[in-house]
Formats: sequence, structure tokens, C-alpha cells
Amino acid sequence: MSAHYLDKIKAFQQQNENRYRIVISCPDQPGIVAAVSEFLYKQQANIMESNQYTTDPDGGSFFLRIEFECRQDGDTQQELEQGFRQIADHFRMEWQLVRVRHLKKLALFVSKELHCLQEILWEYQSGNLMADLAVIVSNHEDARELAEAYDIPFHHIPANKDIRQQAERQQLELLEQYDIDTIILARYMQILTPVFLENYKNKIINIHHSFLPAFIGAKPYERAFERGVKLIGATSHYVTSDLDEGPIIEQDIHRVNHKDKAEDLKRVGRLVERSVLMRAIKWHVDDRVIVYGNKTIVF
Amino acid sequence: MSAHYLDKIKAFQQQNENRYRIVISCPDQPGIVAAVSEFLYKQQANIMESNQYTTDPDGGSFFLRIEFECRQDGDTQQELEQGFRQIADHFRMEWQLVRVRHLKKLALFVSKELHCLQEILWEYQSGNLMADLAVIVSNHEDARELAEAYDIPFHHIPANKDIRQQAERQQLELLEQYDIDTIILARYMQILTPVFLENYKNKIINIHHSFLPAFIGAKPYERAFERGVKLIGATSHYVTSDLDEGPIIEQDIHRVNHKDKAEDLKRVGRLVERSVLMRAIKWHVDDRVIVYGNKTIVF
Amino acid sequence: MSAHYLDKIKAFQQQNENRYRIVISCPDQPGIVAAVSEFLYKQQANIMESNQYTTDPDGGSFFLRIEFECRQDGDTQQELEQGFRQIADHFRMEWQLVRVRHLKKLALFVSKELHCLQEILWEYQSGNLMADLAVIVSNHEDARELAEAYDIPFHHIPANKDIRQQAERQQLELLEQYDIDTIILARYMQILTPVFLENYKNKIINIHHSFLPAFIGAKPYERAFERGVKLIGATSHYVTSDLDEGPIIEQDIHRVNHKDKAEDLKRVGRLVERSVLMRAIKWHVDDRVIVYGNKTIVF
Amino acid sequence: MSAHYLDKIKAFQQQNENRYRIVISCPDQPGIVAAVSEFLYKQQANIMESNQYTTDPDGGSFFLRIEFECRQDGDTQQELEQGFRQIADHFRMEWQLVRVRHLKKLALFVSKELHCLQEILWEYQSGNLMADLAVIVSNHEDARELAEAYDIPFHHIPANKDIRQQAERQQLELLEQYDIDTIILARYMQILTPVFLENYKNKIINIHHSFLPAFIGAKPYERAFERGVKLIGATSHYVTSDLDEGPIIEQDIHRVNHKDKAEDLKRVGRLVERSVLMRAIKWHVDDRVIVYGNKTIVF
Repeated sequence: MSAHYLDKIKAFQQQNENRYRIVISCPDQPGIVAAVSEFLYKQQANIMESNQYTTDPDGGSFFLRIEFECRQDGDTQQELEQGFRQIADHFRMEWQLVRVRHLKKLALFVSKELHCLQEILWEYQSGNLMADLAVIVSNHEDARELAEAYDIPFHHIPANKDIRQQAERQQLELLEQYDIDTIILARYMQILTPVFLENYKNKIINIHHSFLPAFIGAKPYERAFERGVKLIGATSHYVTSDLDEGPIIEQDIHRVNHKDKAEDLKRVGRLVERSVLMRAIKWHVDDRVIVYGNKTIVF
Repeated sequence: MSAHYLDKIKAFQQQNENRYRIVISCPDQPGIVAAVSEFLYKQQANIMESNQYTTDPDGGSFFLRIEFECRQDGDTQQELEQGFRQIADHFRMEWQLVRVRHLKKLALFVSKELHCLQEILWEYQSGNLMADLAVIVSNHEDARELAEAYDIPFHHIPANKDIRQQAERQQLELLEQYDIDTIILARYMQILTPVFLENYKNKIINIHHSFLPAFIGAKPYERAFERGVKLIGATSHYVTSDLDEGPIIEQDIHRVNHKDKAEDLKRVGRLVERSVLMRAIKWHVDDRVIVYGNKTIVF
Repeated sequence: MSAHYLDKIKAFQQQNENRYRIVISCPDQPGIVAAVSEFLYKQQANIMESNQYTTDPDGGSFFLRIEFECRQDGDTQQELEQGFRQIADHFRMEWQLVRVRHLKKLALFVSKELHCLQEILWEYQSGNLMADLAVIVSNHEDARELAEAYDIPFHHIPANKDIRQQAERQQLELLEQYDIDTIILARYMQILTPVFLENYKNKIINIHHSFLPAFIGAKPYERAFERGVKLIGATSHYVTSDLDEGPIIEQDIHRVNHKDKAEDLKRVGRLVERSVLMRAIKWHVDDRVIVYGNKTIVF
Repeated sequence: MSAHYLDKIKAFQQQNENRYRIVISCPDQPGIVAAVSEFLYKQQANIMESNQYTTDPDGGSFFLRIEFECRQDGDTQQELEQGFRQIADHFRMEWQLVRVRHLKKLALFVSKELHCLQEILWEYQSGNLMADLAVIVSNHEDARELAEAYDIPFHHIPANKDIRQQAERQQLELLEQYDIDTIILARYMQILTPVFLENYKNKIINIHHSFLPAFIGAKPYERAFERGVKLIGATSHYVTSDLDEGPIIEQDIHRVNHKDKAEDLKRVGRLVERSVLMRAIKWHVDDRVIVYGNKTIVF
């Protein structure tokens, strides 16, 4: 594979030299937008996109995502953060300021089925996924060739329920070594322990091959076939310690009929999985997804 | 409401004076289609539409639905049935010959939410539902006005879990009195007992307000809201003694997002329910749905 | 039909006693959101929902819709407008302040096909359309019965290309008499002259029975059938003097196949028309649609 | 890329050693199905799937596709054809008997945009496209690397409107050399002359990046953006000498909104193009698509 896509990433970073995102969660009260927009105005920031949501106007939670461009050159992130702290403290905000050119570092965990990995690599190569695909981790060797074709480090770490702890130790070391922000379980098919999860809260994205909460657990296509459903689905969600119960980011479905065997459901389902996971990843790396309780807001 | 739709039904019956459907299920073996089509050819029947399906070419089940027109005038149904019996016996068929102009008699069971009833009445009035809406039954009075506007007999039979047996006795009497073929539970919201069900096997169609098997049971929209799903669904199925577990006829979904409250999910869901139930009813009255095991074939 | 829905409207108005919407269009420049939100904060207004969009961060247009609740009782609309005028002038805004409890007055124009009218009436009656259905106008008598069932004034004004001017004069008088805000062409099937249109710019909503710009003009379903398309669509748009070329508000499609005749396309298409027009009307009465150039922003 | 997919193809061929498809078009008349099924029964053929369609029961055209398995081993195709000729002549059939294990030979024509090519190669490699990808032809060099990764011969033939004749001569030679059945224009972006087309009637499949007949011709995404549509589509069709007017095989759409620029429409559209073209190709290689007039029947 040629590396033209690295040029696309560089071009993106140059275009977004002075662009930032601020993502805020706090108790709702009057004056938040006024304070934040006043602050940005004084910084001579140009607001490119702004989204907000209040769960309940009477004492609910407030969520805000603003993408803006600063006029000044250079690295103003620190100044922005210092200036904003006062507002943040006043409104008791959880907040994050992200410089757009600082791409998120992703680790891709896969197993033997590679269609989701391939979709990610492809969108990456097409310049549609602005992230740093830092490492591919698998408990099988199947993805090695693909990883090498894209010049992405590949690590084979055997994993199954008997050696789970040992495998996770190795994985955690790797994640630290590569300074990973977000883990994508692109059909990884192994359960992760709470110890592993606590280090990456709302930072691990899974694709489940059913329309959750239908067919939680193993072999969803086989069970969908047995049940005789007329639509096949896929769900992308953040991973929590409750299997398949984490906050849902995106779902989609495809129509099937009585002629489709379990094998056909799998084949059709793979297309749904690819597009659902891909949308979830893009929204995540663009900081469009906010978790509250066990749900997501997607701006 | 004016009764132009009765004219549409009459016109339909005249156009289909000589039209029949034969629906067949039997163990798969070579020669079935040859025998049936030879038979129809000898009857000078003109095949309008034919659909078939084999679950498994090696020893599976075979399903066939043929819609055809006989050249002869008059009531040839009896002759056709007599002639066909030999073939049917030879291949050990379950079969049914339906004269298209003999409309199915439907009983509509409703409760307080009337959107599904209204959709059915509307499609009926528009000449899109070729059935005989013989009676509307409810445990509430809300639908009376609508029933009267369409000149359909309305019976108020109080029902709840304490008086279930008594209510069902009254209902069964009514169904017999009106010579009912098929019962539509258009958001009826009461459980039916096995005694009731055994009289109408694969003849009771329900609409469940979720994408089954997700959110089986009560309050699916509230639970969908709690779970934070991104798609809202509805499922139409034949009723069996296992709650919400009967053979699925049709399903569909509509996209929702974090801004939608439980009340919004209900509102959007009602649109999905209307169209899903309507499609299921139309396919059923056209004899397009065949139940095998706990699944349906929809031709 | 019983008039429970009038109770629903009253309840809606009481709940929204102090609720307003402000909708703004202006040249983009820094400080707009800061100024507007500061203004609302000083009015002790609680922002319920806010949406904004910039066509182009470099010298484009800026659009903002805020729904908010004022703490004070009584009619504060005039005060709000007076207070806001200074900001509006400064940023050269086109703007509109709407009190939510003041429902828009709609005139429904229909012809012989009544499915869209029926959907509107139904959603109205279900409490899902918060508008004042002031009058139904038709060049045929078919809708009279339905109008009377809902106690909505019905006016039969014959119209065709030979008596267009005379018909429009009568219609314009009626519209004035009923103080109409918005006209819904719910399959009206007559062309309106520029004279008529200029009085209701961006206030006349049409449903076209195709996926525009495919099949502009007459008989779209017949032409879709001839072309052998695999999807049938409908488009709701504001009416301009260019036939079927006005700003699109909403579109949707439904899958069809080779078995569907032109008559089937019409039948399926009617379902799409109903839902597409209904969504467009709801967004319009909620002031969610902003026209810029020949496009719409839908917040 | 490893060549496991060649194993999948071999396995498919072995499983389908004795499997055939017969595809028939003829004037409708009674007795066709009886004759064909009687013939197959006498051959001891086991019917796996059968689909039929009549455009108009009164003097229309009849279409039939049967997939069946012969019990005998060895190459019985010639015998079947000889035996069937009498029936075919009697009913004036256009017909084709295809042995399933004889894969269609495809030539893929591409230009600079490679997303459709990549989808095809991927589905091929996954064992989901049972065809022989014999050659990739392009007027640019961009696809060479990808072709080589899959060990598919790549030919660079410069083409533009000035050298069209010369280019087509070279292409036709290549097609003959590789014994090509079907040409896939996977975003080839060059017009083909009638001379070229007449050799491959209903054998050239194109993907047009709009919901035809909307946005016929060049730059459909730009024009969709200008028009402000709310859905983006793609259309796969057989190529005829009327630009973008050939028989439509498949169409699909994806929802967009006012925030999407022309560039976003392209990005979203590429996903629709990929899946629409892929479905069309699969149906074509499975002999599921029959052209009649300017339409297709898809069984």
C-alpha cells in the first residue's frame, strides 16, 4: 500500500492548526452558554460548530460541544485552558479542551474475522478517519499480513479464558508503550476483565453483531436465525463490565427474509457491522460522543 | 363516512370472480411442482403468480403458493378441490384452496390506543385492504365512535386479569357468531389464555411495540428509553401461548436520538406500529404468510 | 369525532405559557452567540434547546434557533422584542420571536386524494400537531365530509387553469378572513400563480410525489414505473414560482420491485407522502425550518 | 494478500459440481411451468430455487429462473440443453442454461477513485463473490498496486475523448484475450461508444453516483448539494448508448442534512455506491437479473 494517506493526515493537521474543541458536562443552570461564548469571543475565537443538550430543563444535566478556531498562531492550548478554568470551576464542569490536530491514538484489537479491521484501514487510507492507528493487537496471526501492508505494528498476544490475566498484562503494557487513547474491539471476541476496563473507561468501543438488547451474548446470528427475525442489526457501544450492556453509540439494521440462512445473516450482518462501527469510531475521535449514565449523547 | 369503499370491494370481487390461491406445505421431494403445474394446466388455469421455497434441499420442507385464474365461469372451487386431492395425498400435503373473492372475516380487538385501528380502517376505506371487517371488540369504550363512523359492529367486553375467563367466553361466542377467520390484536394489551388461542392457531396477529426479541413484555418504549437505543422498532407476529414469542411476520424500525424522551419514542413508535401491523395484515389476508416451526415464510 | 384533542391543545398552551422561540439569520461574525445568550441570561430565560449553523466560517451566513422559557408570568413578548432590537440591529439580523402558545393558523388545500389530509387530521386529533387547522379549501367536494367530522370550516372553490385568477382571488380572501399563516398543499394538484405566491413566501408547503429532482411535473408514479426505478420517493418543499424547484424540507423513499405496477407504486407512495409531508409540517410549525437561498436548514 | 480465497472458490465449485440454472423469457401462455418442471423431474433434477414473473397475465411476457441440482455426475450440460431445446422451441423461449461452477469472467474498468474496486476485491477475497476477476483495466495507474496485491492482471490503457476509438480497440482486444463475460465499470468515468457497447449488450454494469433519473450526467454530488436534497443516492444499471438511461438493477440512498457540504455528500455517497454496485454484481453473476425493455427483473 502506498502512503498517500499520510499526506492527507498532514494536510488535515495543517488546515486545523488553530482549531480546538471544547466538550463540557455540568449541572444545568442559566448563564452557561453566555459565559462560554463570552469567553470565546474575548479570545477572538471563531465558532465553527456548536451543539448543546439539556436532559431536563428543571435541574437536569447540561452538555455542550463547541468547535472553534483561534486567530492567533502557535500553541495557545495552555492559555485557553488556564483562562477557562475559572468558568469551569464556577459551573462545576467536567470539561476537556482538545486540539484538533492532536490525533487520537487508537489500538485495534482483532481476532480472526477481519472485515471490521479492513473497513477501518480503508477509511483511514482514504483520508476519512483522522486518527493515529498506532497498533494492531490480536490473539491470532490472521491480521498480520494486513497490518504489515499498512505499516502498522502488529502484536500477537495469545488470549483465551485460561490465560486472560497474563494476556491483559501484556496488552496493558503495549497500550502504555504506544500511549493509546482509545481501544477499538473490531470483532475481538474475548471478554475483558474489570481490571483492564477501569483504565479505559468510555475509551473502549465494541461492535456487537446484533441489535442490542436483542441477542446479548454469544452467537447472535444463529439465534436471530432461530428466532426468525426479519431484520438483522449491529450495535456499537462503549464496553463496561456488564457484557453488552454499555452505553450504545450507534445501531443499524438490514432487512432479511425467510430465504436467508444463518450463514446469509452473517454475511449481510458483516456489512452492517462495518458501517456501524465505523460511524461510532469517527464520532468518537471527533469528540462527538458524551456518555451520561448508561447512555450516549451524539452531537 | 361514506361507503364508497364497499363499491371498491365489490369491484375487487367481480374482477376476481375466477381467481384462486393454492397454498401448500409438504416434505420436499422431486416432482411436486411438475404435478401441481400439470394439474393447473389441465384445468386451463392461468398462473398469475407463483412462489416456492425449500427449507433444505436434502430432506427439508417445501412450500408453494400459486395464484391462478380459471377460464370457466361459476363456482369451480369444489371441482378443483376434488381434483387436487389425489396429488395432495400423494405428496402428503397440507394445503388450502382459497377463492380470492371470499374475503377473510376479521375481528379487531383494541383497547384505548386507537392509532392501529385507525390505520386499518383507513386502508380498508381506501380500498387497500380486501377483507371483511366484521366486528370491533374492546375492553374500553374509546373505539365505539370510530366503529360507528365506519358502520362496523362494536362490542364492549370488559376484560382484565380477574375476569379473563368470563371475558374470553363472551369473546369466543362473538367470534363464532360473526364467523371470524382472523383476529387482529391492534394494541389490545390483554393476555389471551391457551384455551382461547387453541381455537385460532396462526390466526391471531399481534403488534408488539418493540423490535423483538428486544424488550419482550410490558412498557417497551420506557425500557428502550432507559437503555438508550438509537433505533425504535415494532414487530407483528402470530400469537402463541409464549408471550411475544410467536412467529414473526414483519418488523421495522425508525431512527431516534438522545433528544427523544420516552414520550417521543412512543410517538415515533406509533408510526412504525401502524405500518408494520398493516403490512402483516395485508400479507395474511392475501395468504402470503406460511408458518413453519416458529418462523414465517412471506411470499 | 370527539373533541378531546382541543383539551390536548389547551394543555399544551398552558404548559408553554412562558415559552418562546427566537430564530435568527445574519452574516456570520464573532460575538453573536455571546450577545444573544448574554441577553437571554439577563432576562432570566432558561434555554431549553439551541441550534446553530454557519454556512461558511469565512464570511458565510449564520443561523440560530433558541427555544427558551421566561421566568416571569404574563405577556413579555413585547418587552423581549424591544430589548432584543438593539442586538438585532447591531448584527444586521433577520429575526423572529415566536411565543410557543400562539399556534400557527393553517389552511389545508386539497383535491380528490385525501390520504395526506387524513394523516394531518389524525395527527392533529392525536395531539401530535400543535397548530390551528383553521380552514380546508378544495376544488372538489370530496373532503367536505371529513372536514365536517372534525368541525373544520370547508370551502369549495372550483379551480382549474381556465378560472385560475378568479379562484385565487376567492382563496386569498378566505386566507385573509381566517388570518392564515401557512398553507399546506396536501395533494392540491393545481398550479398557483406568482401573484398568489408572493403573499406567502416560504409559507406554502407542498408534497410532491417523487424523489425530486427526479420526475418533476405531472404523473411521477407513471414515469417512475416506466423508468423501472427500484425506490419510490416523496418530497416536501416550499412552493416557489418554479414548479417543483422550491427549497426542499424533507424527502424519503420506499423500496419497490419489478412486481409493482404503477398502481402499486401509487399505493406505496401514498404512505411515503403522508409521513414526509407530516414531518415537514411539524418542523415548520415548530419554526425549525429556515430557508436560505434555495435550500433549507432544519434544526 | 494471501490466496485463501482461491480455496473458497474451489470449495464452492466442488459443492456445486452438479448444479445448474436455467433462465427463460418467452410470451406468456398456459403450460410453461408444467412443461419445464416435467422436464426437470424426468431428469431427476432437484429444484433448489424457482422464481417466475409475468408482466401481464393477458398476453404479457413470462420470465422464469430455476436453480436445480442433477443427481448424475459428470458433465450433463450438453444433454440437458439438447433435451430442453424442444420445449424451448415450442414456447418460443429465449433461454440460457448455466452451470454454476463455471464462474463468469469479469473485467473491472476503473479510473482514479478506487473505493468500488476495493469493495469488489474485498468481497471476492472474503469468498462472497463467486466470479473470476480476470483483468483490471484503467486509464490511470492508481489501481496497479491494488491489482498486484490480489494477483490480478492490470492493464493501463490511456483513454479520453480524443483517443476514444484507439483506446476501445485496445480494450476490446483485451476483453477477447481474457474471454470476458461481463464488464464492471467501477467508477470508470469514460463514455463508451455504441461500437463498444454492441458487443456486450446487458453485460456492462455501471455505478452512477446519484439516484437516477435525478442528476443524470456529470458532477451529481455537486448538483445534489446545490439543489439541497435530503437524501443521497446511487444507481447501478446496465449500460446502453443513452447516457445513464439503461435498465436499473439496484438503487439505494443515505440521509444527509444541511450541514453536509458537497465533499461530505461524496464521502457518504461512496459508501452507497460500494454497496449498490456490489449487490448488482452479485445478482448478475448469479443470473438473477433479466432485462426486459428498459427495466430489470431481479429474482
